[in-house]
Amino acid sequence: MSLLVIGTVAFDAIETPFGKTDKIVGGAATFISLAASYFTKNINLVSVVGDDFPQEAIGMLQKRGVKTDGLQIKEGEKTFFWSGRYHNDMNSRDTLDTQLNVLATFDPVIPADFQDCDFLMLGNLAPAVQQTVLDRLTKRPKLVVLDTMNFWMDIALDDLMSLLKNVDVLTINDEEARQLSGEYSLVKAAKKIMGFGPKYLIIKKGEHGALLFNKDQVFFAPALPLEEVFDPTGAGDSFAGGFIGYLAETRDISFDNLKRAIIFGSAMASFSVEKFGTERIQNLSQEEVDERVQQFIDLVQFDISLVG
Amino acid sequence: MSLLVIGTVAFDAIETPFGKTDKIVGGAATFISLAASYFTKNINLVSVVGDDFPQEAIGMLQKRGVKTDGLQIKEGEKTFFWSGRYHNDMNSRDTLDTQLNVLATFDPVIPADFQDCDFLMLGNLAPAVQQTVLDRLTKRPKLVVLDTMNFWMDIALDDLMSLLKNVDVLTINDEEARQLSGEYSLVKAAKKIMGFGPKYLIIKKGEHGALLFNKDQVFFAPALPLEEVFDPTGAGDSFAGGFIGYLAETRDISFDNLKRAIIFGSAMASFSVEKFGTERIQNLSQEEVDERVQQFIDLVQFDISLVG
Repeated sequence: MSLLVIGTVAFDAIETPFGKTDKIVGGAATFISLAASYFTKNINLVSVVGDDFPQEAIGMLQKRGVKTDGLQIKEGEKTFFWSGRYHNDMNSRDTLDTQLNVLATFDPVIPADFQDCDFLMLGNLAPAVQQTVLDRLTKRPKLVVLDTMNFWMDIALDDLMSLLKNVDVLTINDEEARQLSGEYSLVKAAKKIMGFGPKYLIIKKGEHGALLFNKDQVFFAPALPLEEVFDPTGAGDSFAGGFIGYLAETRDISFDNLKRAIIFGSAMASFSVEKFGTERIQNLSQEEVDERVQQFIDLVQFDISLVG
Repeated sequence: MSLLVIGTVAFDAIETPFGKTDKIVGGAATFISLAASYFTKNINLVSVVGDDFPQEAIGMLQKRGVKTDGLQIKEGEKTFFWSGRYHNDMNSRDTLDTQLNVLATFDPVIPADFQDCDFLMLGNLAPAVQQTVLDRLTKRPKLVVLDTMNFWMDIALDDLMSLLKNVDVLTINDEEARQLSGEYSLVKAAKKIMGFGPKYLIIKKGEHGALLFNKDQVFFAPALPLEEVFDPTGAGDSFAGGFIGYLAETRDISFDNLKRAIIFGSAMASFSVEKFGTERIQNLSQEEVDERVQQFIDLVQFDISLVG
């Protein structure tokens, strides 16, 4: 019984209106694992890095309870590298450089003691690689959550459509939902996308919050209004990590519990953007997490009693 | 004890991706009064039209309990006319034509029996005209709510800044909040704008909901995810009408009650966009209003109990 996390472990170099970084540790699976670690233990990571990846970063993950036996370290090769510059509105960015390096030939290997997996988080990667992970699991997890992005819709749509038949929850942003469905209305987009396979769809709207759909219900979680968004990198992954970490711990996949999971995910995303990279979500206290979740409760709570 | 509503009563001609209208009845004060009428009676309207304005439209307002003694009818003159075309995203629009007509010389006259006013809604008009209304009230209302727009920030900023010192609640959209404050972050913008006078600021974000700020608190109300937004004209005014109508009826201006009022306002806005012009908000039943408000409750309600 555990949470299996697949995705990139990477170097990022980030420029925002507030400053820039040299190569820092990033990657979808890194953010997901760290965010999940505030809610559940028994997190198993499957990914790949080069021999340039710092041992301290692996130690940092292990310290948060993440098992790294599935993290391949390729001798003589280099870690996946992404570099980007955010615009002043922090909602859009330009990719300055992408070096696939070890990711170009990534063949995910699932250690034997990672097989007993009830919750699977397929972080952003080529859909074919995500499918390979599913194929290599001897039993289907209780819940499979998929994150993807417009890049794969552009270059690997057939693979993605095929993969969608096999997942329970899809998380994408609003523009991606529109691209994938061909519908502008997010309500119409959601119906169409759920027709492709996923029982649940989460549409992330950045500073405008997130929507959770199933066939009959819709739930809206706000984003916390922040004075500054310092670095949006990893916000979606931190969201996904908090979401699946809470589900894995509570083992309850009712709609009501998915709503709670989205609030915890939103809380982790709100931390993530406060500093560069993973800095903010490496060392949170339980008090900080509780206080942040309480801010979400206060933000949307109102009391109306309808007669009748 | 009553609600006084000032603003335009107008003709609109609207083009959307779904169709176009000839001249139909619109105007800020029309939408505000109609939306408010589902929550309170004793609504007093002050505005101006030409003799081309249909008596049936005035009758329609009266039928909803709106007193029109303050609606000046200018013989031989024409009613204010606005024409616009919405883009495919329904969030942006081009103004095709604006004919001020009677609005060019509007001198608001407040009938003696409208003076006893506890709640004042200053719908979108030139700030100097809005100030005149305040000046002509013999006692200050319990709550003054101001709606304005970027147009007045462009051409009458001094008048607007002076007026802001005299109002309790300001409602503007996100872009207007950024323009008025010079801050991109809405949290920073809100602090700065409340420094200009208003104790409360409501930032309307269209399909992304609305934020209510006071000095120490923030509340977020979602917009209802709709399959189609048919015509956004008047959504902000319907919001304001539901908001102040509920407050005028309950006579409670605590932050908790302002939160409720925003949900009722959001419900009215969600009706307004479903049909052209005022069509949808002319004849709602109490059941429809209650059902819509329940949808808002269901949309954001979650149950997290934090230990400690």
